[in-house]
Amino acid sequence: MEGLSANVSRTFQNRLVLPPDTNHLGTIFGGTVLSYIDEIAAIAAMKHSRRAVVTASIDSVNFLSSAVVGDILTLEAVVISTGRTSMEVFVKVESENLKTSRKTLTTTSILTMVAKDDNGAPVPVAKVIPENDEERQMFKTADMRRQRRLEMRKSN
Amino acid sequence: MEGLSANVSRTFQNRLVLPPDTNHLGTIFGGTVLSYIDEIAAIAAMKHSRRAVVTASIDSVNFLSSAVVGDILTLEAVVISTGRTSMEVFVKVESENLKTSRKTLTTTSILTMVAKDDNGAPVPVAKVIPENDEERQMFKTADMRRQRRLEMRKSN
Amino acid sequence: MEGLSANVSRTFQNRLVLPPDTNHLGTIFGGTVLSYIDEIAAIAAMKHSRRAVVTASIDSVNFLSSAVVGDILTLEAVVISTGRTSMEVFVKVESENLKTSRKTLTTTSILTMVAKDDNGAPVPVAKVIPENDEERQMFKTADMRRQRRLEMRKSN
Amino acid sequence: MEGLSANVSRTFQNRLVLPPDTNHLGTIFGGTVLSYIDEIAAIAAMKHSRRAVVTASIDSVNFLSSAVVGDILTLEAVVISTGRTSMEVFVKVESENLKTSRKTLTTTSILTMVAKDDNGAPVPVAKVIPENDEERQMFKTADMRRQRRLEMRKSN
Amino acid sequence: MEGLSANVSRTFQNRLVLPPDTNHLGTIFGGTVLSYIDEIAAIAAMKHSRRAVVTASIDSVNFLSSAVVGDILTLEAVVISTGRTSMEVFVKVESENLKTSRKTLTTTSILTMVAKDDNGAPVPVAKVIPENDEERQMFKTADMRRQRRLEMRKSN
Amino acid sequence: MEGLSANVSRTFQNRLVLPPDTNHLGTIFGGTVLSYIDEIAAIAAMKHSRRAVVTASIDSVNFLSSAVVGDILTLEAVVISTGRTSMEVFVKVESENLKTSRKTLTTTSILTMVAKDDNGAPVPVAKVIPENDEERQMFKTADMRRQRRLEMRKSN
Ligand SMILES: CC(C)(COP(=O)(O)OP(=O)(O)OC[C@H]1O[C@@H](n2cnc3c(N)ncnc32)[C@H](O)[C@@H]1OP(=O)(O)O)[C@@H](O)C(=O)NCCC(=O)NCCS
Ligand SMILES: CC(C)(COP(=O)(O)OP(=O)(O)OC[C@H]1O[C@@H](n2cnc3c(N)ncnc32)[C@H](O)[C@@H]1OP(=O)(O)O)[C@@H](O)C(=O)NCCC(=O)NCCS
Ligand SMILES: CC(C)(COP(=O)(O)OP(=O)(O)OC[C@H]1O[C@@H](n2cnc3c(N)ncnc32)[C@H](O)[C@@H]1OP(=O)(O)O)[C@@H](O)C(=O)NCCC(=O)NCCS
Ligand SMILES: CC(C)(COP(=O)(O)OP(=O)(O)OC[C@H]1O[C@@H](n2cnc3c(N)ncnc32)[C@H](O)[C@@H]1OP(=O)(O)O)[C@@H](O)C(=O)NCCC(=O)NCCS
Repeated sequence: MEGLSANVSRTFQNRLVLPPDTNHLGTIFGGTVLSYIDEIAAIAAMKHSRRAVVTASIDSVNFLSSAVVGDILTLEAVVISTGRTSMEVFVKVESENLKTSRKTLTTTSILTMVAKDDNGAPVPVAKVIPENDEERQMFKTADMRRQRRLEMRKSN
Repeated sequence: MEGLSANVSRTFQNRLVLPPDTNHLGTIFGGTVLSYIDEIAAIAAMKHSRRAVVTASIDSVNFLSSAVVGDILTLEAVVISTGRTSMEVFVKVESENLKTSRKTLTTTSILTMVAKDDNGAPVPVAKVIPENDEERQMFKTADMRRQRRLEMRKSN
Repeated sequence: MEGLSANVSRTFQNRLVLPPDTNHLGTIFGGTVLSYIDEIAAIAAMKHSRRAVVTASIDSVNFLSSAVVGDILTLEAVVISTGRTSMEVFVKVESENLKTSRKTLTTTSILTMVAKDDNGAPVPVAKVIPENDEERQMFKTADMRRQRRLEMRKSN
Repeated sequence: MEGLSANVSRTFQNRLVLPPDTNHLGTIFGGTVLSYIDEIAAIAAMKHSRRAVVTASIDSVNFLSSAVVGDILTLEAVVISTGRTSMEVFVKVESENLKTSRKTLTTTSILTMVAKDDNGAPVPVAKVIPENDEERQMFKTADMRRQRRLEMRKSN
Repeated sequence: MEGLSANVSRTFQNRLVLPPDTNHLGTIFGGTVLSYIDEIAAIAAMKHSRRAVVTASIDSVNFLSSAVVGDILTLEAVVISTGRTSMEVFVKVESENLKTSRKTLTTTSILTMVAKDDNGAPVPVAKVIPENDEERQMFKTADMRRQRRLEMRKSN
Repeated sequence: MEGLSANVSRTFQNRLVLPPDTNHLGTIFGGTVLSYIDEIAAIAAMKHSRRAVVTASIDSVNFLSSAVVGDILTLEAVVISTGRTSMEVFVKVESENLKTSRKTLTTTSILTMVAKDDNGAPVPVAKVIPENDEERQMFKTADMRRQRRLEMRKSN
């Protein structure tokens, strides 16, 4: 099988949670996390496709725990499957409390990014080769998710 | 039925698409739209609950069309159903091209916001009374969406 | 009388007062409110003229009460009169304390915006038709304000 | 006469006009200039009063010329008169085109800032001693402006 | 030898170069790169010390090449030596042109970060164990750099 | 000797330290100060050269004391020597505590900025004429610093 290794797109990001990112309870805004997720997914998809990309969709996101000022967020993104012009990007966000060293999962999310040429038209992308068990599992179930997305789009 | 009218939480927002919100194709970032959606959903939920709120989840978002520099975004948010401490907020985003006066639907989205007391504990919220057909329809199907979310959370 | 209804330009905005918008007494900066006022006036004028606009002037602004972190600002803007290429935009800002539900008037302001074509030259705009008593009152007194502005510009 | 020299509060600021400060005609937003004016007026008033300050009002502002990306703005602020707890601050904004070396006046403005103690209550400020002809002129006409502001507030 | 592996503090960051980060030649500001360098150095030092940190100094920085809109920056930071309360952090910045896949070194830099307790007093940090040849080399030459810094501080 | 007076490039900046510029100890980020330094150095170099400029290097920076929320920063920049296309800019940063009126030196720094024509090629700049003893001293020692920089660049 031809294609690019998932390692080509794998992207890491650490971010400090700062006061302007938080509400008056001191916890980070969902919107801030969502825009970090979109940015890292775009970088991963750009590394894979060597193209400008746009976000076609983001699957549902559950914020399992919150992060507070002084925490460190760790984001990881990787392309897990591809269509003709689209890429599925898996993003994982953890937050770490410095004093307790405790890491908690903030959320995971799957986005679909579409590669664009300089005129803004969708352009084909290389296939991806998953590199670990989790990625191979997500690679296999890509069609199922694609199907589910199509159904939900219709039912709306 | 007792409760607060949906009109209490109904919130409008107009935003100009500016260069820093866009990529080098000149189209707005998905992450920017997502953080606008989260902000207006929080305002609607705060108006309904008179409390600080956090984002528990956002359902899948499809970006149906893009917006470019100079367009005007119109966002509308309204609480459409409630649990004990959570509120479902429906958000609709349209973009308008000034020259052609053409409005296109950018996306719709449903978020779950949880009301918090000053110690950060979830706190009960009033019921909502839908005010138009679309809202009454979404009010009726709230349990179904809640069920679907629970299933998806388990399957992950 | 021909022209566009004031409803065409009527624009609403809700904004949450966040920590970065406030000084160390926790109250919002005048400059932040002024830039919100300018942004919403620009959107109203763009909706009326379907053109890019620039701010020609802003009448004096009195900050009648302050807003603090956690308050919700409500801004409303509407074109209230027009010249050949200029539009007078009335902006009203209220702040709402969530706990007490008390709304207080922050300020009102009148700006003059000028429509521009793609080369940056001023371009004629449609007349406006006021839609309620307050607007009709302001429509009638537009000439007086225009006169007063001319005098003050000379006296400077 | 006792008091603080105007030189104590005199404040200078140079700012580069950058793409995010401008609309799609490439000219700076009125709102950006207004927030620069408010920030420098606050610094001048803080230097004079050694206190936190809030903006009570800003007199009408005429934008006489625009600035474009790459221009350098020069702002100057100085306390020109005082009441019991309030200070009148004069702000002048010029823009300079680097290639032609031409400086043009963007706007002048007068703001009233009020000194606050740590509980947010207004607190008396020292008198100011004007240092040049322009300042002495504005010092003398302070009562007249104060009167005019009172009248305009009533007529609204 | 006791201490923490350099891997504990190793931190990666990818950043997209966006229009607001660039001047009108379209190249990134030195100040933007410097603030990215300081942020990632702080995260690396916080991971090592599990404390809040402040920047005591940054060694001279040469910007060897520039980055333009659409490029992807890769930053890497790692603690390479420690004093009693201070940590030396090595930061490397590369930029990558997506179309050509060419990576160029933007700059390298060494910062000294000091760990602080909750009252802001310097607090001891664990030793670091370098993990590769480059790190071992920098670990060995730490005293020399410390000496050179002391001399330069005196000569100023 | 022909050239431009140092007064041509001399630039002042006052900045209020605001919550978003600070960590959770309430002290300003090193990266924020570095980006202020770079911005004011660029303005000084642009005033001298009437050209766009890029930062070639920044000499080592020692943060001698910190600034906290509510302090006022004073930055001063001036071109102190020139090469063919490059300018050495000296920047001094002080912070002032409003209550105590105490001014402390935050840091000094020397940057090398290169003038660029519209195609991004280095372009010759005028000589500079120092105007006070400190500037004359730095003017004389420019060659020494240039030498030291060259050596350090080689040794890396
Ligand atoms: C996404 C978009 C490019 C699709 O355009 P289109 O005309 O439907 O193009 P195509 O039918 O050729 O679809 C292109 C790819 O996108 C996929 N796609 C389209 N809509 C999708 C959605 N909602 N979710 C996931 N994938 C989607 C298609 O399946 C196709 O994938 P494939 O090539 O791998 O088979 C278009 O809807 C768009 O521009 N949306 C806005 C994107 C944007 O700007 N987002 C930022 C915020 S608004
Ligand atoms: C959302 C959150 C408060 C739920 O906490 P919890 O301990 O599960 O509390 P509860 O079980 O009492 O649930 C509170 C409500 O949230 C709802 N809820 C919890 N997780 C949810 C999810 N993923 N999607 C939708 N609703 C959810 C529950 O159904 C319950 O609703 P109800 O009171 O109307 O029946 C918690 O997971 C949290 O703090 N998450 C982080 C939120 C955040 O900070 N978001 C911003 C970015 S990280
Ligand atoms: C850095 C700072 C904490 C040092 O304080 P101090 O009173 O000199 O404290 P100490 O003498 O105990 O020094 C603490 C450590 O910092 C080191 N240090 C001090 N100044 C330094 C400098 N300019 N460069 C490198 N290291 C320095 C000391 O060598 C010592 O290291 P060690 O414990 O590993 O031996 C103090 O100068 C400061 O707060 N500066 C401002 C930091 C800041 O806020 N930066 C952001 C922008 S202003
Ligand atoms: C700085 C830069 C323009 C030099 O380019 P170059 O091809 O070496 O050009 P030249 O050899 O003609 O040098 C131009 C001038 O820069 C000086 N210069 C080059 N590197 C320098 C450095 N690290 N420190 C100080 N001066 C330097 C040269 O001495 C020369 O000065 P002079 O004309 O006064 O004698 C180039 O390295 C560059 O573009 N760097 C990135 C700048 C940037 O974008 N910074 C922002 C963040 S990345």
